[in-house]
Amino acid sequence: MFTVIGERINTTLEKVKEAVEKRDADYITNDVKKQTACGATYIDVNAGARIGCEADDMKWLLDVIQGATDLPLCLDSPDPKILEIAYGRIDQAPMINSISLETDRLNAMLPFLKGKDCKVIALCMDDSGLPKHSDDIVNCAKTIVEKLEQIGMKREDIFVDPLIQPISVDANNGAMAVEAVKTIMQDLKGVHTTGGLSNISYGLPQRKIINRCFLLMMMAGGLDSAILDPMDNKIMAVLKTGELIAGNDSFCMNFLKSVRAGEIRS
Amino acid sequence: MFTVIGERINTTLEKVKEAVEKRDADYITNDVKKQTACGATYIDVNAGARIGCEADDMKWLLDVIQGATDLPLCLDSPDPKILEIAYGRIDQAPMINSISLETDRLNAMLPFLKGKDCKVIALCMDDSGLPKHSDDIVNCAKTIVEKLEQIGMKREDIFVDPLIQPISVDANNGAMAVEAVKTIMQDLKGVHTTGGLSNISYGLPQRKIINRCFLLMMMAGGLDSAILDPMDNKIMAVLKTGELIAGNDSFCMNFLKSVRAGEIRS
Repeated sequence: MFTVIGERINTTLEKVKEAVEKRDADYITNDVKKQTACGATYIDVNAGARIGCEADDMKWLLDVIQGATDLPLCLDSPDPKILEIAYGRIDQAPMINSISLETDRLNAMLPFLKGKDCKVIALCMDDSGLPKHSDDIVNCAKTIVEKLEQIGMKREDIFVDPLIQPISVDANNGAMAVEAVKTIMQDLKGVHTTGGLSNISYGLPQRKIINRCFLLMMMAGGLDSAILDPMDNKIMAVLKTGELIAGNDSFCMNFLKSVRAGEIRS
Repeated sequence: MFTVIGERINTTLEKVKEAVEKRDADYITNDVKKQTACGATYIDVNAGARIGCEADDMKWLLDVIQGATDLPLCLDSPDPKILEIAYGRIDQAPMINSISLETDRLNAMLPFLKGKDCKVIALCMDDSGLPKHSDDIVNCAKTIVEKLEQIGMKREDIFVDPLIQPISVDANNGAMAVEAVKTIMQDLKGVHTTGGLSNISYGLPQRKIINRCFLLMMMAGGLDSAILDPMDNKIMAVLKTGELIAGNDSFCMNFLKSVRAGEIRS
């Protein structure tokens, strides 16, 4: 099953920041209920925007969100101290967003992850900067999966993020990501792949159609998770149609149910 | 560049049949001009619906169409006699639609194709019936390409059609086709892949969104041609976006041009 990480509870979004500032629980509750109804598998929680307030904001958000949904959470912070506080406050095994091979981040995150009951997003990025070839991404993925396995994590708990770069910067960035996902899913059997796909369209007009088309091409490569807005009807429609085509929808049940609900239209 | 074979001039479509019956050149001219303007690379011509009239209808259609467009034609008939007549009446090297490994068709088509200046669509189908696994499709492709090379055809003139079967019949039919295209493009370097993709959605509702999503997933596998309706704005929009993502649109020029022309909308 495709894992949808709902990206809406992020304090870098102005409305969310405002709601957190005002401790507007209704706003957060309402949003999370909608993300849940629209088919999120995880709710991402990022409380990092208000400098000096991350711990308090995260605690408040977690309490409100867990009152609004039974979904597991995706704890989104680069700071293991914040993650430790958050981890102690939640009801079910979370996803951690994220670790990478950048030395500082790696050294901070590995001790946090060791022995924890969680899934993790592993960003294909190291100290050498942005990957320039799909081999760079695949090598990064192999190294980081190895390091996570060394501390006892299971492959099926690792969600590799190939680190999407904009097509406007290099025409090959889309094909590079598709190729990388294909190889990662072949060479690291059992692992998942995910990502915040919208970076692909940065700097271009009509971004949403690019994001939708990219999601489908990544799914053809084996992508089985994405960080996205579950309240975007059109991307959810192509996601369900992509699952149908990928052979992950026996007897077309989910597709037909969504058509009947008016969620998928030609 | 992606090869779009415009499928609209087909006498199995009621309006086209009527226009052919009445020798309504305006209707055909108008349609072909539109297909050309919308981005067709070839115009498919199928005159097979009116029993006993195929030769005359084909000749009339070819004359009218060639008066309306400078595009090359895709001659769509199972009958080498008709194809021979058509081949003698056209201005530029056509595509022939199609050959397969079914014994009767193969034996009739190989002598026709030998020595001709043309491209050909090669259907992955033999006497054993419909393929059940992507390996069946790939093996069919290898055999048919070998037979075409034996009579002197070049790989770059062969458009392999993996023979799309409906997802409603078997949930794996979409994934099978994507996998087949991927392997064909890897193992038979230089060959093209194409197909009438809409068969994928047969028996399901909201067929057009399925067809569009399928086109993108096939493009991720390497598909570089399709038989479709160039006047369907939405499929042409995802096609152009797919080309952008696949890295076949340097500096995003075509995408940006289409956005400016209002042809691509989020």
